[in-house]
Amino acid sequence: MRAFLRALAGAICLQLSLTALAAPPVVFTTDEAFDAASVSAYTGAHDAIYAHIDANLPAHLSELQRWVRQPSVSAQNRGIQEMAALLASDLEALGFRDVALVPTAGHPGVFGFYDAGAARTLVVYMMYDVQPEETGWQVGAFDGALVDTDLGRVLMARGATNQKGPERAFLNAVASTIAVTGKLPVNLLVVAEGEEELGSPHFPEIINAYRDRLKAADGVMFPFNSQSPTGEVGFNLGVKGAVLFELEAHGAPRGGPQRAEIHSSLKAIVDAPAWRLVQALATLTTPDGNDVRVPGFYDDIRPPTFDEQRLVNAMAKDSAAREAGMRQSLAVDRFIDDLTGRDLIARQLFGTTLNINGLWSGYTGVGMKTILPHVATARLDVRLVPNQTPGGQLERIRAHLDANGFDDIELRKLSGYPPAQTPLDAPLVSTAISVFNKWGHVPNVAPRLAGSAPYYVFTDWLKLPNLAVGLGHGSGAHAPNEYMVIEPKEGSSIAGLADVEKFYVDMLYAMAEASGD
Amino acid sequence: MRAFLRALAGAICLQLSLTALAAPPVVFTTDEAFDAASVSAYTGAHDAIYAHIDANLPAHLSELQRWVRQPSVSAQNRGIQEMAALLASDLEALGFRDVALVPTAGHPGVFGFYDAGAARTLVVYMMYDVQPEETGWQVGAFDGALVDTDLGRVLMARGATNQKGPERAFLNAVASTIAVTGKLPVNLLVVAEGEEELGSPHFPEIINAYRDRLKAADGVMFPFNSQSPTGEVGFNLGVKGAVLFELEAHGAPRGGPQRAEIHSSLKAIVDAPAWRLVQALATLTTPDGNDVRVPGFYDDIRPPTFDEQRLVNAMAKDSAAREAGMRQSLAVDRFIDDLTGRDLIARQLFGTTLNINGLWSGYTGVGMKTILPHVATARLDVRLVPNQTPGGQLERIRAHLDANGFDDIELRKLSGYPPAQTPLDAPLVSTAISVFNKWGHVPNVAPRLAGSAPYYVFTDWLKLPNLAVGLGHGSGAHAPNEYMVIEPKEGSSIAGLADVEKFYVDMLYAMAEASGD
Repeated sequence: MRAFLRALAGAICLQLSLTALAAPPVVFTTDEAFDAASVSAYTGAHDAIYAHIDANLPAHLSELQRWVRQPSVSAQNRGIQEMAALLASDLEALGFRDVALVPTAGHPGVFGFYDAGAARTLVVYMMYDVQPEETGWQVGAFDGALVDTDLGRVLMARGATNQKGPERAFLNAVASTIAVTGKLPVNLLVVAEGEEELGSPHFPEIINAYRDRLKAADGVMFPFNSQSPTGEVGFNLGVKGAVLFELEAHGAPRGGPQRAEIHSSLKAIVDAPAWRLVQALATLTTPDGNDVRVPGFYDDIRPPTFDEQRLVNAMAKDSAAREAGMRQSLAVDRFIDDLTGRDLIARQLFGTTLNINGLWSGYTGVGMKTILPHVATARLDVRLVPNQTPGGQLERIRAHLDANGFDDIELRKLSGYPPAQTPLDAPLVSTAISVFNKWGHVPNVAPRLAGSAPYYVFTDWLKLPNLAVGLGHGSGAHAPNEYMVIEPKEGSSIAGLADVEKFYVDMLYAMAEASGD
Repeated sequence: MRAFLRALAGAICLQLSLTALAAPPVVFTTDEAFDAASVSAYTGAHDAIYAHIDANLPAHLSELQRWVRQPSVSAQNRGIQEMAALLASDLEALGFRDVALVPTAGHPGVFGFYDAGAARTLVVYMMYDVQPEETGWQVGAFDGALVDTDLGRVLMARGATNQKGPERAFLNAVASTIAVTGKLPVNLLVVAEGEEELGSPHFPEIINAYRDRLKAADGVMFPFNSQSPTGEVGFNLGVKGAVLFELEAHGAPRGGPQRAEIHSSLKAIVDAPAWRLVQALATLTTPDGNDVRVPGFYDDIRPPTFDEQRLVNAMAKDSAAREAGMRQSLAVDRFIDDLTGRDLIARQLFGTTLNINGLWSGYTGVGMKTILPHVATARLDVRLVPNQTPGGQLERIRAHLDANGFDDIELRKLSGYPPAQTPLDAPLVSTAISVFNKWGHVPNVAPRLAGSAPYYVFTDWLKLPNLAVGLGHGSGAHAPNEYMVIEPKEGSSIAGLADVEKFYVDMLYAMAEASGD
């Protein structure tokens, strides 16, 4: 009878906690669509610099090869010090001053200042680390090989596109500009980290060390291959935040086994942490796992701005093909609630998430081991949209667990950072669109990426617009045979290395010449 | 709004499915306690045979050593054929006929018939396989070493107590009886398996091959070291059944990823199998994980018989020390519902269970991998008491999942068998108690073990009483330094090898002389 009353009380709890908890719809107040083509194309022409790039292209390519041939695997601390020193030395050779390795609790950052005596200053964000190489490479991952493919001649190496290729191409553009004109049209502040592939745990330390100098800049750029295999250009104005945490049930708080697993027959008389974890997790979502039942979980979400709506409205045009491609590449038959078109894009970019990344308890090997495990763990992540905060969401989850009697469940924060957002009307955004338009690639501009990066240090700490942009195409960032196209096939819309560099030259001048502030 | 209605419907579902579902209390109708001391002690004395055992004790010990020196690790298929042949050859040497290796889909069984021309026939169940040896042995696991310990001189070897020691001691008793009297007082049917440590998957095949011959017997005995380190004797009249199964959620049925994990940010628009598994599992129990919500789950349980109640009442006397020992060895602070005494014993021995043995999904290694896993799996076991069946319980779980909308969850049966129960009033039970009483060890008789074994082949198929009994003490069955006491310390209540064998001699004669049927 006690057990039944307990069960009934549990049911009532669930019932109460369900009140009107469901992902709120994203409300649109306009059907107007942003038209990137309406932004005037940049008109500057820097022919002498372009000619210098063309004349020195083999040497410029060698610079990319030199970078990718230096392994810098952050997860394995392999070549990290060497690559940091290489980057610092390259900056000094280009005339940067105050060049320094920036100590952190992890791998060092690299800082450098190019003083052009210019009115405007651009922060250039770089990452000098790469993913570990995996099996399945057709060339040595650190050989810097040139390979002929269906897309043309590519540099195939770890880091070719993520991110050494575009970064060194940017520095090549800087080198040619200085060689031809004597100096750059804008000042540069380079801040590089060696832990991007680890989730940038210490990047805020690097930014903090130069916070005041960086704050005085006009924007942040991450050299990036923004072209798809068919040449279309796209970029994002923001990223979601993320908070990663673990929920864990132990035997101790309720009487389950505290030291080690015990024989499964003892379930008759001993509490099981695995069931407690399952029950605690189950209170967090609706039965389909798609709406979060934690009170207040959706409260802080700010509705999309007018500009963000215009961007989504533009993305939603002709989205059927994009959705079909997504379904195929993800191997899914449908999206949540059978969403399509604008609703799907809105949910993906403006929706928060609560996801189970990993779940484990007891014996998970081949065969059967009849045990009652003493611990059960779930690793989760929440993706955050403006104005959600990592701490706020974790507090709500903790409070919800406590309110439902799950105060025995341990909540361990692993990492977390808020979202980052650059407004469409930031001058740097118009500048980027105008340069893409000059090169004949009207960009698809998304209000944000569904993924996460700690760019809040730029947008929130430094109050700067922040863009990852560039011509060029590469792929395989975290896979074998990573590449960046160097010489595209005849007729391809992909930019070759020379045009990638010329784009960056234009970006620097367009920024210097822009009228906005 | 659709999501909210879905959530509300889910809550109503849960509410409905909760109706009066809780583990039913075990109702006692008597406080009478079984008194094993009231069973008349066996009065037979077989001095000539005892003298033969004493005179040949060094040779008998060598037989135990010969057995443990032959590795027979079923999990590694190491020495299995050799040990089966050794056992068969030993049976032939003792005068057994129809000795045969019994082919199965796994390791072979061994059969042998000793025809004493007697009225009564005993089936002797044996296992000839052992667990793999682990690290931490102070002697070679297969050396058959004699070691002096706090308990006296012991045989320390893999299989010393589980189960080669008591088995070969039984055959030594047989050998001495035949040597002195020319034949045994009962006929013997030996059925041995080489897969006990694998869960006896093919043992039913062995029994089935000799079903008619075995059925005509009077009981089944498993030679067993029934003494605790302090010399107390205990044995069980039954075992629970068990059904092992997996529940698995895949992306396919609901739209989640079908082929592989996808990026965790996609949770915004893609269904997650891990949440579905968690939600499905959560419907199976109350929030504390201790009562099962599956309709009908408790329906088939037959209440304890009058005799079973008397056994529990006897066990409950002076149970505080036993409970304290259990709490310490299991490292638990309390038992479910703070049960103690008779209630605790009753729940442990008469309660069914639903336990999570293993749970896994996604990335479970060091660090964080932000993914949405495409599959999530739970491995569970249900312990069955009379009159529950493996198929019946799985059908109820399947029906419950379907009724709650979880028809997308796959249920895979791994193995299963029903419980086995020998009644207290079976003649073999009185015989065993009477022989223990003769040796001054009034046994603690439990109605059953909370654990499981496929002894239904004896109790249900053959309709025979089935006991694991013997004098002697050993420990470390699945651990380093497994041992069986050979020469106990002066003053110890543990039987030495000679008395272990004399007990078996008495068992054979007591069975032959028993008046009951």
